[in-house]
Amino acid sequence: MPAKKTRNAPKPSLRRMPRYLRCLQRMAKERPEWVSCTHIAEQLDLDPTLVRKDLAMTGITGRPKTGYLLAELVEAIEHFVGWDTPEDAFLIGAGNMGAALLGFGGFQRHGLNIVTGFDIDPGKVGTKIHGKEILHIDQFVDMARRMHVEIGIIACGVASAQQVADTMVEGGIRAIWNFAPIKLQIPENVIIEYEDLSATLAVLSRKLASRRQLDAEAPVCGNDL
Amino acid sequence: MPAKKTRNAPKPSLRRMPRYLRCLQRMAKERPEWVSCTHIAEQLDLDPTLVRKDLAMTGITGRPKTGYLLAELVEAIEHFVGWDTPEDAFLIGAGNMGAALLGFGGFQRHGLNIVTGFDIDPGKVGTKIHGKEILHIDQFVDMARRMHVEIGIIACGVASAQQVADTMVEGGIRAIWNFAPIKLQIPENVIIEYEDLSATLAVLSRKLASRRQLDAEAPVCGNDL
Repeated sequence: MPAKKTRNAPKPSLRRMPRYLRCLQRMAKERPEWVSCTHIAEQLDLDPTLVRKDLAMTGITGRPKTGYLLAELVEAIEHFVGWDTPEDAFLIGAGNMGAALLGFGGFQRHGLNIVTGFDIDPGKVGTKIHGKEILHIDQFVDMARRMHVEIGIIACGVASAQQVADTMVEGGIRAIWNFAPIKLQIPENVIIEYEDLSATLAVLSRKLASRRQLDAEAPVCGNDL
Repeated sequence: MPAKKTRNAPKPSLRRMPRYLRCLQRMAKERPEWVSCTHIAEQLDLDPTLVRKDLAMTGITGRPKTGYLLAELVEAIEHFVGWDTPEDAFLIGAGNMGAALLGFGGFQRHGLNIVTGFDIDPGKVGTKIHGKEILHIDQFVDMARRMHVEIGIIACGVASAQQVADTMVEGGIRAIWNFAPIKLQIPENVIIEYEDLSATLAVLSRKLASRRQLDAEAPVCGNDL
């Protein structure tokens, strides 16, 4: 696999990588050896030039008019995103969202294996959720250090999120996926990505509001006929 | 409230609106009458010019050197995003993700009220999840039409997502929030937004992979001292 040096790939490009992978996995069922940017772009309703640029970031080089070897492209994307070696993760906050994340099998296809959940609720500690043990948060630092777990998922409420983040940093977590809608203070050498469901909801709500406004303004022109 | 005509607000701006709202709600606790772009920008670690542009989209006009009346700004953003009037939504797919969404109280602050869940699993139909009734999917079209519900949330698996989307369209749903990682075919007049958790995971994984590569390449220079 070519060691690609592109370190600061733009976020929108990175965010499209799973879509490319899923598209290629669907295509693979029909067993084509080669795939082209144009074909991928058509499938995903994207601009072919954009697809070409995105895929080039992975370090793969296509052949003019032929495209890429499908298997090689899948491998290149997975390697680029870091999904070629499965990675263990710890989750803190075994409430509704936490339980959903613990039970979501799809992450394993994306190189992520949420091995254990942590909480402070005595009703949850010691139980299993979707087959994953729930331990007391007091065990987090020690376990994360011993198991060299470097990805932490914050699924607790806003009120305790900062404290949970501090615990993760103390445990040696290097990358935090935060589902609590609050900006957290973490050291510069720790990576953090925010998952903000309300952001998508804002886009959806606004579009619906605009559509209604347009409808209200449009002249009635016998649509019922 | 001024009727702002900006219909095609850029998605990144729309996605930032909930962060502005949360920031203002935190600020409100200290009861300031006025807030400035600079102050909001500092709090959220954003560029003040960007904040000014985003807020201008809501139709509000600030006063030079003083900023905005906090209460007016909150109202303007909520109106702009369409969160000033609570909106009912139906959810299809009461599995892990669906249950998490049904139980997440936070959406109500964002104008969304998930009133009922639908599924085909006889073990779920007729039960309640987080106090919300789970009905059979066969009742969806009739109920959505009768109750004029226009927002639908797809929380089922990939395999049934297209069929679920078709059911929503038949029931008169105008805006779909899709959590199934698959591109859906829907009529042009129906709005759809995709929530793709693997996209954020790709960004996080890639950043961690890059960081490790950098660490591996960095000369050892007595960091232990």
